[in-house]
Amino acid sequence: MQNNNVPSPIRVVLDAMGGDYGPRETIKGAVEALNRDSELEVILVGDEAPLRVELEGYDLSGKTVSVVPSEGKIGDDEHPIRALRQKPRSSIMVATRMLNNGEADTLVSMGSTGASMASAVMILGLMEGVERPCIGGPFLGLAPNTMLVDMGSNVDCRPALLLSFAAMGVVFARRFMGIENPKVGLLSVGAEEAKGNRQVQESYQLFQDSRLNFVGNVEGMDFFTGRADVIVSDGFVGNILMKFTEGLGSALGPYLLQQLSAHLSARELGNIISDLWETTNLPRKMGGPLFGVNGAVILGHGSSTSEGVAGAIATAVKYVKLDMVENLQAGLAEVQLQTQVKV
Amino acid sequence: MQNNNVPSPIRVVLDAMGGDYGPRETIKGAVEALNRDSELEVILVGDEAPLRVELEGYDLSGKTVSVVPSEGKIGDDEHPIRALRQKPRSSIMVATRMLNNGEADTLVSMGSTGASMASAVMILGLMEGVERPCIGGPFLGLAPNTMLVDMGSNVDCRPALLLSFAAMGVVFARRFMGIENPKVGLLSVGAEEAKGNRQVQESYQLFQDSRLNFVGNVEGMDFFTGRADVIVSDGFVGNILMKFTEGLGSALGPYLLQQLSAHLSARELGNIISDLWETTNLPRKMGGPLFGVNGAVILGHGSSTSEGVAGAIATAVKYVKLDMVENLQAGLAEVQLQTQVKV
Repeated sequence: MQNNNVPSPIRVVLDAMGGDYGPRETIKGAVEALNRDSELEVILVGDEAPLRVELEGYDLSGKTVSVVPSEGKIGDDEHPIRALRQKPRSSIMVATRMLNNGEADTLVSMGSTGASMASAVMILGLMEGVERPCIGGPFLGLAPNTMLVDMGSNVDCRPALLLSFAAMGVVFARRFMGIENPKVGLLSVGAEEAKGNRQVQESYQLFQDSRLNFVGNVEGMDFFTGRADVIVSDGFVGNILMKFTEGLGSALGPYLLQQLSAHLSARELGNIISDLWETTNLPRKMGGPLFGVNGAVILGHGSSTSEGVAGAIATAVKYVKLDMVENLQAGLAEVQLQTQVKV
Repeated sequence: MQNNNVPSPIRVVLDAMGGDYGPRETIKGAVEALNRDSELEVILVGDEAPLRVELEGYDLSGKTVSVVPSEGKIGDDEHPIRALRQKPRSSIMVATRMLNNGEADTLVSMGSTGASMASAVMILGLMEGVERPCIGGPFLGLAPNTMLVDMGSNVDCRPALLLSFAAMGVVFARRFMGIENPKVGLLSVGAEEAKGNRQVQESYQLFQDSRLNFVGNVEGMDFFTGRADVIVSDGFVGNILMKFTEGLGSALGPYLLQQLSAHLSARELGNIISDLWETTNLPRKMGGPLFGVNGAVILGHGSSTSEGVAGAIATAVKYVKLDMVENLQAGLAEVQLQTQVKV
């Protein structure tokens, strides 16, 4: 799907059943997004009866919101591909088909990551040169200009796959984050070329040859040093890091409460701790794009409340406005051309 | 080396040349440790002239401290095994030999981790059933009862190697941390058996069969949930996590400074930030034991100042008092016996 002109209004199709708190929080988040952005249109996909019940609580005058019925949802505990076959009318399948048919410009889902990805791959297809899609973006409020890719879908990655992650990360960093010539680093255990596991060692030369702005291996602390703008790892490491940071942010709250309760009012403390929590939970606040599929798909955290849903919708709108899908396709083609020339 | 009776005084041999700030901070740290523990004896190994110069600044009356001369040191940038061959009289080699000969009860080094490990393996030898040594311990002040093993020496680990890490971690958690029946988790990207990279998937069944108190896969947030006491990963992931946490702790300082400067005095703020920094840098404060070699070796962070050196010496003393080397050997034998019986 190519958008040479930015559509207006931007039509977001939302898997309203998805996530731990759908449809209550997904619908609440959609309404919040509609309140903030008058140019927005939201299409809610889900079991019709509960959606209608939820919607009754809101004043929707002047807002463009519609309901498209679907049947059932796919849970985190289900095998994604099997579940998609068994539930072809499930919310994620219906929503993805709408994106593919041009009935929407972007899709937002808080549902099972595996099911959202599988649905996107099956229906939208992969971009040329991409073997598997990935998730990426900045993940720390403390380091908002450093992005991590992959955040958790692909374990055991071959070098060419990591290179495709990097190429898409660079496009995202340039267009979405406004970094002119993003520096790319391979996440490892030492800066030297010989340092790292087999996967990193095998990837180093390919990255070196790719003419990406490759700065070599980076280490865990380099999320905070600015040595690289795009830090590339497989999804095993990326997912562990992301969840570790979430856990750390939650643990810091009680710690600071204890440290600071003598100095600050309960309200001041509450603000600081909630700010800190957000700082360590950026993807929960804004969602993350699914790179490598032919469509604008934004995945949110399963435990998102309305604020996370509204944040993911805002990310989706920006993603469409910046024409990210076409830019990612172009970025991939460029890297592949360069790699082929070099080889 | 077996210690059926705890030696008194405990003789710590310190690679005084090691680390970014040796011998100045290593010697300062040794003196701090001697001030705190009257039962301690410290043997400083290093280039004699600079060591004598540093020692002149201290009042050592009533303290048992001696200097054993060596020639040169091995840097972080050198290939460990090659450097050991070229510098057989280097501080780490001389110190390790003293431990092996029974001239010291425990060795503390802030020097090149690779060189310290290689020297320990060459001179002390590996425990039976251990293919490679590893580093482990609690690494977060926010989660002081959760230990991580391996923290950064072994990438690309086979299942049996991870199992040996776990077995040693369990002994450490039981004896050193006082946890009666430590729960063991494999660090992965989901709790289900099928989740994880190939390494984790291949290890799961072996762990299941081992009769360790295996609770299955754990995730990044489980460092803070208490689901497992001993979290096992390869050193690639472990090292990235440890360095990431260090970086995060350093970045939180300026962040909190900004958030809190209106509420707290500079002094109060300084205390809180330094406490937080320690909380995210536990290994820098107390060092970490090298598991799997036939001797009590404690490795400290290369950038340790005197406090880190004194902390590592305290860890070394506790390690000897708890007879950890013999206990680790016994723990390994037990796991191997069980695994063989099951197979």
